[in-house]
Amino acid sequence: MEHILVRTNGSQANQATALRNRELFEMANITVINLMSAPGAGKTSLLEATIPGLRGWYEVAVIEGDSETELDAERIRALGVPSHQINTGKVSHLDALVINSALTEFPVQGVDLLVIENVGNLICPAYYDLGEKLRLVVCSAVDGSDAPKKYPMMFRRADAIVVNKVDLAASGGAEVAELRRNLREANTTAPIFGVSCRTGVGLGAWLGWMRNAVARRDVLVATNA
Amino acid sequence: MEHILVRTNGSQANQATALRNRELFEMANITVINLMSAPGAGKTSLLEATIPGLRGWYEVAVIEGDSETELDAERIRALGVPSHQINTGKVSHLDALVINSALTEFPVQGVDLLVIENVGNLICPAYYDLGEKLRLVVCSAVDGSDAPKKYPMMFRRADAIVVNKVDLAASGGAEVAELRRNLREANTTAPIFGVSCRTGVGLGAWLGWMRNAVARRDVLVATNA
Repeated sequence: MEHILVRTNGSQANQATALRNRELFEMANITVINLMSAPGAGKTSLLEATIPGLRGWYEVAVIEGDSETELDAERIRALGVPSHQINTGKVSHLDALVINSALTEFPVQGVDLLVIENVGNLICPAYYDLGEKLRLVVCSAVDGSDAPKKYPMMFRRADAIVVNKVDLAASGGAEVAELRRNLREANTTAPIFGVSCRTGVGLGAWLGWMRNAVARRDVLVATNA
Repeated sequence: MEHILVRTNGSQANQATALRNRELFEMANITVINLMSAPGAGKTSLLEATIPGLRGWYEVAVIEGDSETELDAERIRALGVPSHQINTGKVSHLDALVINSALTEFPVQGVDLLVIENVGNLICPAYYDLGEKLRLVVCSAVDGSDAPKKYPMMFRRADAIVVNKVDLAASGGAEVAELRRNLREANTTAPIFGVSCRTGVGLGAWLGWMRNAVARRDVLVATNA
């Protein structure tokens, strides 16, 4: 299994760059969120539902990661928020180096919150530190209940978990309750928010967490100063 | 970007083993389907909905690929069908070599149809030929409409496409129509089946395709004999 070995080496090189990124972000006073999910779970939809609620509170910028197309960056720009698209081709995750390179083309000075929307994938992105402060994982309420068991690393290391599409789940029976149990088993501390980006259900509590996540950074900075 | 280079080399080595697998399967008269989708789109649910309809027609066996757990193989065994689980750990796809190795532990002589359920991922699995005859891609009717644009290789090379969860999509408006248009743009020839594994909608037409896919192999064999 030579490709496992290669990836381990890749991860070690990645870690050095991730630490460099983290220093850069902390010096520039930017809260960075690594936003991850399976394809189609609703990462971009969650940003579309969240960003208007941060307006007036924080300056936001978004780096989008996708195999191909500029579609997601365009959706973010339509909100009036600067966005930079990274296309990864055959590679199914972002890494610290591509983020570091992106920052030369996409300066984030003056930004309070930088969201990095990772490539849709529940495996590889869990192993690549980008230099983020917080890891946010989105999952769908109608994709069954076993994702936290099959992809434990992704869910174990999350700082918050958003279960999207709860409006569709009512007809799906007891599956969401089991999903929540499995999420809690994989991760005993992260807050779990049930939302529907389409109907708006649950977004208030979620937005409270987001505002607080950025604000806490400010408090820490004030304490350190 | 050294990992792209490594993967390209990996694919070349993979291709030789894939050809070997294909020869083995053809000599043993086994139709092999590589079943792919994003995590949670419903690959295993589709097998649960399909296999009972093949009973009495064909001997079926299933190789399951997942990052962790034996959950999917257990679901297939519950149908009375032999199933072998491969756990890929940090690797987000199956390759021809792990399939070749699996066949030593999981003999498939006498089987008419071998389904290989790939790891849930829309990127890497598209680039790894396993030696299959047919590539089947499942997508969810409620994961937006842009997957065919973002993951063109996955959809372009599919021999058939199943859109699952159509029962949930009615409330989602025009999105499914747009998904179908995007699927057709990515792949001009593959049949597209709208189904709900939960309610059973659309499974009849789908099952017809599956039976025919295996039967066509028999016809070819008879002609050659």
